[in-house]
Amino acid sequence: MNILVINCGSSSLKYQLRNINTQRVMASGVVERIGESMGQITQRSFPDKWPDTKDTEELPILNHEAAMKLMVSKLTNGVIQSPHEIDAIGHRVVQGGESFSHPVLVDENVMNTIKDNIPLAPLHNPANLIGLEQAMILFPETPNVAVFDTEFHQTLPRHAYMYPVPKIFYEQFKVRKYGFHGTSHKYVSKTASVFIGQKIEETSLITVHLGNGCSMAAIKNGKCIETSMGLTPLAGLMMGTRCGDIDPAFHIFLAKNKGLPLSEIDILLNKSSGLLGICRKNDMRDIHEARLHGDDDAQLAFEMFTYRVKATIGAYLAILGSVNAIVFTAGIGENDPDVRSMACDGLENFGINIDPTKNNEKTAEARYINTEQSRIKVLVVPTNEELEIAKATAEVVND
Amino acid sequence: MNILVINCGSSSLKYQLRNINTQRVMASGVVERIGESMGQITQRSFPDKWPDTKDTEELPILNHEAAMKLMVSKLTNGVIQSPHEIDAIGHRVVQGGESFSHPVLVDENVMNTIKDNIPLAPLHNPANLIGLEQAMILFPETPNVAVFDTEFHQTLPRHAYMYPVPKIFYEQFKVRKYGFHGTSHKYVSKTASVFIGQKIEETSLITVHLGNGCSMAAIKNGKCIETSMGLTPLAGLMMGTRCGDIDPAFHIFLAKNKGLPLSEIDILLNKSSGLLGICRKNDMRDIHEARLHGDDDAQLAFEMFTYRVKATIGAYLAILGSVNAIVFTAGIGENDPDVRSMACDGLENFGINIDPTKNNEKTAEARYINTEQSRIKVLVVPTNEELEIAKATAEVVND
Repeated sequence: MNILVINCGSSSLKYQLRNINTQRVMASGVVERIGESMGQITQRSFPDKWPDTKDTEELPILNHEAAMKLMVSKLTNGVIQSPHEIDAIGHRVVQGGESFSHPVLVDENVMNTIKDNIPLAPLHNPANLIGLEQAMILFPETPNVAVFDTEFHQTLPRHAYMYPVPKIFYEQFKVRKYGFHGTSHKYVSKTASVFIGQKIEETSLITVHLGNGCSMAAIKNGKCIETSMGLTPLAGLMMGTRCGDIDPAFHIFLAKNKGLPLSEIDILLNKSSGLLGICRKNDMRDIHEARLHGDDDAQLAFEMFTYRVKATIGAYLAILGSVNAIVFTAGIGENDPDVRSMACDGLENFGINIDPTKNNEKTAEARYINTEQSRIKVLVVPTNEELEIAKATAEVVND
Repeated sequence: MNILVINCGSSSLKYQLRNINTQRVMASGVVERIGESMGQITQRSFPDKWPDTKDTEELPILNHEAAMKLMVSKLTNGVIQSPHEIDAIGHRVVQGGESFSHPVLVDENVMNTIKDNIPLAPLHNPANLIGLEQAMILFPETPNVAVFDTEFHQTLPRHAYMYPVPKIFYEQFKVRKYGFHGTSHKYVSKTASVFIGQKIEETSLITVHLGNGCSMAAIKNGKCIETSMGLTPLAGLMMGTRCGDIDPAFHIFLAKNKGLPLSEIDILLNKSSGLLGICRKNDMRDIHEARLHGDDDAQLAFEMFTYRVKATIGAYLAILGSVNAIVFTAGIGENDPDVRSMACDGLENFGINIDPTKNNEKTAEARYINTEQSRIKVLVVPTNEELEIAKATAEVVND
């Protein structure tokens, strides 16, 4: 069974074709700068094989319809013979609101509900909808499944998802904590429970997704009960360019003292803050390089970033009561031993001990990085959102 | 030595006259509705004695000069013979910025620096300055000491007080975490260390100030290293009418979806949020009453409030690494066993066990509420900001 996974952004289209039976990736690609004067498509075919083929082509790509057709022509040029070989399409959709707590076969009702949730994700849901519409036109007989970034967090209890603001904003506008990166938190929590040999229904985990965006989740017996992102992906941890949690009076202070309108403050908190705001770099590898050369701002950014992860680990320990494992994932979480060790430094009294040698190893597999004595296990688990979406899609279609 | 403690608000003046040698309060009073058509002064004289005398008078009080003169006339009518018996005046000043990490004898330079910090506390510092100016006019030969709400938190490390926003806002406008309730956190941390018989320099504490405003502090060996309020007192925990931490994209969401200007959003987050926003009540006693009668919103407000305290206890456990005691103080913290037990519920694995019987006792003294087995002590310590200001004032004057 071949599943095509689609992640449609406002000017990009990421895709992956995967055989769910062999677990093999047949092709993965990205179409960029859709609608600009010059666009680009890059596809790697059979990336598991050696040598894989990487194919990049520059050309103007008018719109998402053109992007999707381009994807089909690349896929049918050596990967598959015909679009009919695609058995189902899984779509990443950012915001399912309170409507979706599971992956769902897409029909007109589902499309309308995703539309209804646009106010909660004004940048993302419209792009995801275009991907869905185009897929339905190009593959009229292929089932489409929507997998939501928010669905894993729909199990949050009320006291965790409600904000201490007038309750009418929840009733009128559904203002609440949704959380994001749900597919990643779900995937690594399942993988971790298999890895440590416990049933997910009997396992309590803290998952730490540190990439360009950063979020954490507290997962009790397989159910997410807390997460750091909120109504939007701006909340929680410090990120590459996003601020995470700050004093909610910051906005009025800046409006009064610098005369900035709220729309500009919002852009600034999303695009010019986080690591970038502190040290003019938002790639942790560049920050480590700068730290080595004595860059004090880079050192501060590193300390602030890891400090906030550590404080959130503490908060989630308290919320969960007891924890089996802490799981690091995503770009920084998987590849940055300095961030991991600093975030867990000083947590020995809580049963968290990292083994420096294990922490410094590099593998593409799930692994322990804790010492033998560590009461709480600490793991690195590479995330794989495409695989999770493909599996979920197959499950819905086969159901 | 008689110390007059003054807390001057925009339309109120609270005062307390205290003999620092006998530790006795000689009088405490409040002047309210200054500048309105009808004001009021209430003074209790010798409140330690029985019966004390409580004296309330209604009259128009034109301005702070009139309020201060009224206070002097009440004090010299039976409490002291003459203003000359006041040896020093201690002033509560809200925002000392980065300029003050200790109480300070007030001179022209100090006045100017408090003025410089007005942008950081536009509602509070101007009122505090009026109190200082009037005190200098009415008591020209008496030393004035300023004690800042922020000074105890000036020991926060850089990675804790910096916000993940463009660093230029710190450099240009001193945007950072300041923290408030410092006098209370300092007083209860010192009292707690004496009570448990440890040197403050060797004691790690989490102090939990839950009143109308709520804040927590992580105190390592007598030095505050983290606190929940921020640039302003809006940040951190859920409070009576203040939201505490929320998604920083909440503002733009509400501006777009409800068409509210930022100035109104700011008022709403300060005055209509917190407990009040969730259940239309901001007094925890009323909330318990409503819970008893099955009010679901009151139950939600209670759960949200205590959940945030618990999560912050967890965060501060991680930040401190090891903790000797958790200290509850202020109106709710001192008097509400339900809040205390709910906030510590499920923390047994971290060595925190509350004894229900001890927790339900009512005393005006510092006391333990933990079980014998509890590795971390849990205390209730009544706060006394006036006493702390009086002591600090005497120390500065005697120095």
